[in-house]
Amino acid sequence: MSAPDIPATLARCRDLVTPALQEAVDRLDRASREQSSYHLGWTELDGSPGKGAGKAVRPALALLSAEAAGAPAGTGLPGAVAVELVHNFSLLHDDLMDGDTERRHRPTVWARWGAPAAILAGDAMLAVAVEVLLEADSPYAAVATHLLSVTVRELVRGQAEDVEFEGRSDVGVEECLAMAAGKTGSLLATSASIGSVLAGAPAPVTAALATFGLELGAAFQLVDDLLGIWGDPAVTGKPVLSDLRSRKKSLPVTYALHHGGAAGRELADWLAGTDESTEPELHRAAALVADGGGRGWAAAEARRRLALAEKALAGAEMPDTTRAELVALGRHLADREF
Amino acid sequence: MSAPDIPATLARCRDLVTPALQEAVDRLDRASREQSSYHLGWTELDGSPGKGAGKAVRPALALLSAEAAGAPAGTGLPGAVAVELVHNFSLLHDDLMDGDTERRHRPTVWARWGAPAAILAGDAMLAVAVEVLLEADSPYAAVATHLLSVTVRELVRGQAEDVEFEGRSDVGVEECLAMAAGKTGSLLATSASIGSVLAGAPAPVTAALATFGLELGAAFQLVDDLLGIWGDPAVTGKPVLSDLRSRKKSLPVTYALHHGGAAGRELADWLAGTDESTEPELHRAAALVADGGGRGWAAAEARRRLALAEKALAGAEMPDTTRAELVALGRHLADREF
Repeated sequence: MSAPDIPATLARCRDLVTPALQEAVDRLDRASREQSSYHLGWTELDGSPGKGAGKAVRPALALLSAEAAGAPAGTGLPGAVAVELVHNFSLLHDDLMDGDTERRHRPTVWARWGAPAAILAGDAMLAVAVEVLLEADSPYAAVATHLLSVTVRELVRGQAEDVEFEGRSDVGVEECLAMAAGKTGSLLATSASIGSVLAGAPAPVTAALATFGLELGAAFQLVDDLLGIWGDPAVTGKPVLSDLRSRKKSLPVTYALHHGGAAGRELADWLAGTDESTEPELHRAAALVADGGGRGWAAAEARRRLALAEKALAGAEMPDTTRAELVALGRHLADREF
Repeated sequence: MSAPDIPATLARCRDLVTPALQEAVDRLDRASREQSSYHLGWTELDGSPGKGAGKAVRPALALLSAEAAGAPAGTGLPGAVAVELVHNFSLLHDDLMDGDTERRHRPTVWARWGAPAAILAGDAMLAVAVEVLLEADSPYAAVATHLLSVTVRELVRGQAEDVEFEGRSDVGVEECLAMAAGKTGSLLATSASIGSVLAGAPAPVTAALATFGLELGAAFQLVDDLLGIWGDPAVTGKPVLSDLRSRKKSLPVTYALHHGGAAGRELADWLAGTDESTEPELHRAAALVADGGGRGWAAAEARRRLALAEKALAGAEMPDTTRAELVALGRHLADREF
């Protein structure tokens, strides 16, 4: 069996999802439709055609999970549309809460149209996600929608903890991982299993796919946090040492604070400061995260979580080609250079 | 048949709904749970027991609509919980968007806990509404949930138009009524029919109940707008001439602007101003709304809409006692003094 071609897999899934996603967005009120089209990369600020959407990883997982259950990808399509809508609902609201003015080098919706626009377009996307999923031609549409709604609560919990943790200096590694499980893991778990739910797969298959998504989410978040410090700006699109500039208490930083001894204490002192840091100070902070064990731990934990994700798939009944595609997609997401 | 005792009806419905609503709120993350309990009037800012919740009109309509379909009120219970959660989701988000710092003489959630709290608690309430409704022991749970989600899109459309209209001076009466149908009518229509949907009533019964709710919503909004100008502060809890103080282009004002001749033109000039108005100026503005026909039109239109609401019920098959309760509840809401 040849190695799966992940860019081709992502393109195939995107081609299937985009028209259905457009049909869903077309149902929104005029303002929400305009803002959502812009946010999704379909249009630019002046209404001209956009330079393209994201990789649409979540829809791809949803479609593959239908195939994992032995169904056609199309069985997972309403799930794919719904998870992408929920993902973007949460981005619209989170960008506003976090005060982020740019996403992928473009103004965020709230920065361009104001806070009410971001709130309302997000609300509308969440509502239409439920609508589309309940219209799925599957006896399990309601079960899938219930799962999606529980996931939204998990997303909210994760974001609420993220907001709360910003005001605390004593957040532990376990709390931080639980927060990431809410913010990233829960929707990846649901994305990776919703197609299988819609296909009516046996419970062990669906559970294995959900575990795959959850563990993949943890690995992805750990790698993302590593890239936020040591990522190549040419690849990440963010400034060098980006997460340290904003004094973000990411997972590697949190680890070093708690387990880093003298390096951790120096790091804590620097984090407590409020002045803008100089470049040498930022490099010193990065060295403290590494010296405090944060870099090594996060890399090892990412590998461990990715292995758990793959182990879950290995133990489940599914076509070998689909398992290979899921494994390759997981590595594509979690095995980035840092 | 004796006249229905509406306070008793509302109390009976509230007693049925409150424990189920509490169970739903208990599922939320810690922060959203605390803020929702406060918002719902169950707790005060210091966590002590609250002075009580609102009238819970929407849950009452949902329960009565199950009885209208010949089912026990309990059949409508998940619908009652869901519409109350959706109503409060929209209040949390609207208070933030509108910059309202007080609701029922208490600080709003965003004013007390910040914007992220109001956004997240609202999102979580919306998610749990879908969850609870899908758990209904009814073969029509998914149909009811689909209806609820379409309703959320209508709420969003209405609020988006409301926000947009604030920046325009040429909004017509029809546009304004369509906006109110989104903001008020859509959820009242769904509240008044969701119990009947869950009970699997024949389509004409459900349609009649939805029309009742929609027309009642229009009447309610018109009366609310009249009270916003001429309401007794002791009854409304708002300052005298409240909506004129904020230069709100409510329905009576919009009518006078378009159909009020010289009075309408003088009113338009005053609305275009930005200085804080003196009491004599506010009384003059109220007189212009009345002279321009806005007061008379709004009162007549409210009566016409209430009559349409009652006509819809008159033509539908349902127990006479339930019809009488719905009619009395409608009058209780739309026939307030102004």
